[in-house]
Amino acid sequence: MSQIIDGRAIAQQIHAETAACVATLKSRGIQPGLVFIRVGEDPASQVYVGMKEKKSAELGFRSTTLVLPADTSEAELLARIDGFNADPSWHGILVQAPLPHPIRQATVYARVAPEKDVDGFHPVNVGKLLLGDTDGFVPCTPGGVHELLIRSKIPTEGAEVVVLGRGNIVGKPMSSILMQKGRTANATVTVVHSGSRDVVAHCRRADILIAAMGVPEFVKANMVKPGATVIDVGVNRIPAPGTPSGTRLVGDVAFAELQSVAGHITPNPGGVGPMTIAMLLANTTRAAEQQSR
Amino acid sequence: MSQIIDGRAIAQQIHAETAACVATLKSRGIQPGLVFIRVGEDPASQVYVGMKEKKSAELGFRSTTLVLPADTSEAELLARIDGFNADPSWHGILVQAPLPHPIRQATVYARVAPEKDVDGFHPVNVGKLLLGDTDGFVPCTPGGVHELLIRSKIPTEGAEVVVLGRGNIVGKPMSSILMQKGRTANATVTVVHSGSRDVVAHCRRADILIAAMGVPEFVKANMVKPGATVIDVGVNRIPAPGTPSGTRLVGDVAFAELQSVAGHITPNPGGVGPMTIAMLLANTTRAAEQQSR
Repeated sequence: MSQIIDGRAIAQQIHAETAACVATLKSRGIQPGLVFIRVGEDPASQVYVGMKEKKSAELGFRSTTLVLPADTSEAELLARIDGFNADPSWHGILVQAPLPHPIRQATVYARVAPEKDVDGFHPVNVGKLLLGDTDGFVPCTPGGVHELLIRSKIPTEGAEVVVLGRGNIVGKPMSSILMQKGRTANATVTVVHSGSRDVVAHCRRADILIAAMGVPEFVKANMVKPGATVIDVGVNRIPAPGTPSGTRLVGDVAFAELQSVAGHITPNPGGVGPMTIAMLLANTTRAAEQQSR
Repeated sequence: MSQIIDGRAIAQQIHAETAACVATLKSRGIQPGLVFIRVGEDPASQVYVGMKEKKSAELGFRSTTLVLPADTSEAELLARIDGFNADPSWHGILVQAPLPHPIRQATVYARVAPEKDVDGFHPVNVGKLLLGDTDGFVPCTPGGVHELLIRSKIPTEGAEVVVLGRGNIVGKPMSSILMQKGRTANATVTVVHSGSRDVVAHCRRADILIAAMGVPEFVKANMVKPGATVIDVGVNRIPAPGTPSGTRLVGDVAFAELQSVAGHITPNPGGVGPMTIAMLLANTTRAAEQQSR
């Protein structure tokens, strides 16, 4: 049987470390401050921002949530971001995706001051991550996967890593993280995507397989090398007749059938998901530290 | 026998296109202006900057070269960059590597205004390239390799690409370029490096093998799949007793023995080298266009 990578327990460890940092900062008169910006009433965004707000309050952060109507213009949103960029009492700014049409997500992400970009989406932080410059911010989800690997003592040096998916939020930065020099990276990374051939063959040679392409239960038992580590980043809503909502959430990995094959595997939920908030709050604490110097 | 990818001829095509763009810009009263900054008297840097100056003059650019003494402080260098950043008559700024100790290369590259960073080394341009945002500048050497592939009609879609080397100048941005969606990319990219295992096996499954790790004649015939495309980015100076300088330049590829194996191959010199200048001047023309809007 596979060893389960307990994302909830690891996220708790990180939260405890963050709480200790917050206490230290407070003793110096600094309370980390985090701004959430939501545009429109996307139900999933409401839930995500709500969870992040709640956890940030628990850990002693100051936070505020700006909710703008769905018909907010891009210019108005950018002006609100400028306001928070200029206000030294806020250390981190998170603009929750998705943003309603016709607001351009890339334009918005690039407007957040890089030193307050605790989501790690600003091009300058994306660039620093690829360049191996550690003073930028690492995007929360791939950063969380990295912590799962480190804290589960899964060796990455020389490992064959296959990242399924080349999204800007997970696949690409995940590849940037694991190809760097250094004891906690130094992997041989292949990014496999919708344009790839021989996807099964690539998956089968992976020591660490990271599924982040958004296809329900794509990774099956025959695609995994026995003993490999499998990380499921997917969150897919699929029809589930007979349930109250008529839908249910599944990952990119067929968890049940992999349990006899994988060496280590993340459950879903309870794997990568909790890590995203943990990394967000760790990033914000670091932002507050850097800005208070 | 392999087909030779003639970098000199392809660079000439690009130079002709650039000259046409320069003529159009001049008819609008704009002459693309390119600043070269050299610090100290590194002989290779003198040669490189000299070649770039000469070609830019040939194509109708305005250029200037600032030569600073080897003991220039980082602060002084940054101040000089700020001056050129602020001067609208200069569209592109190139700081020639290597920079003498203790000047920090990353700090210097990050100081060039992103819109004048025609070398594509600023983190924001590195980030845009990975994100697939085409309004940044692509670094000249990997951008040149990409043009070699496109203009030699070597299909990249679905191709297995192995990049040997994870340097910030070639390996990492090369991987960023070829993993994107789109007809001229969409490859399955693996970045292989000094921490990788099974290097030969990776090389042998490549449809396109790009050698950029700086090891003289590392890629041998037994490492190449018959018919594969082999691109040699390496420039290594090795001892050559009996020659006037006592050294000679070789690439990362054992060219002679690969000629019976590779489908397409770049010579070295005459392959990737000439493309670097071609892409620099193409980038500068685009910078002038963008800044004149």
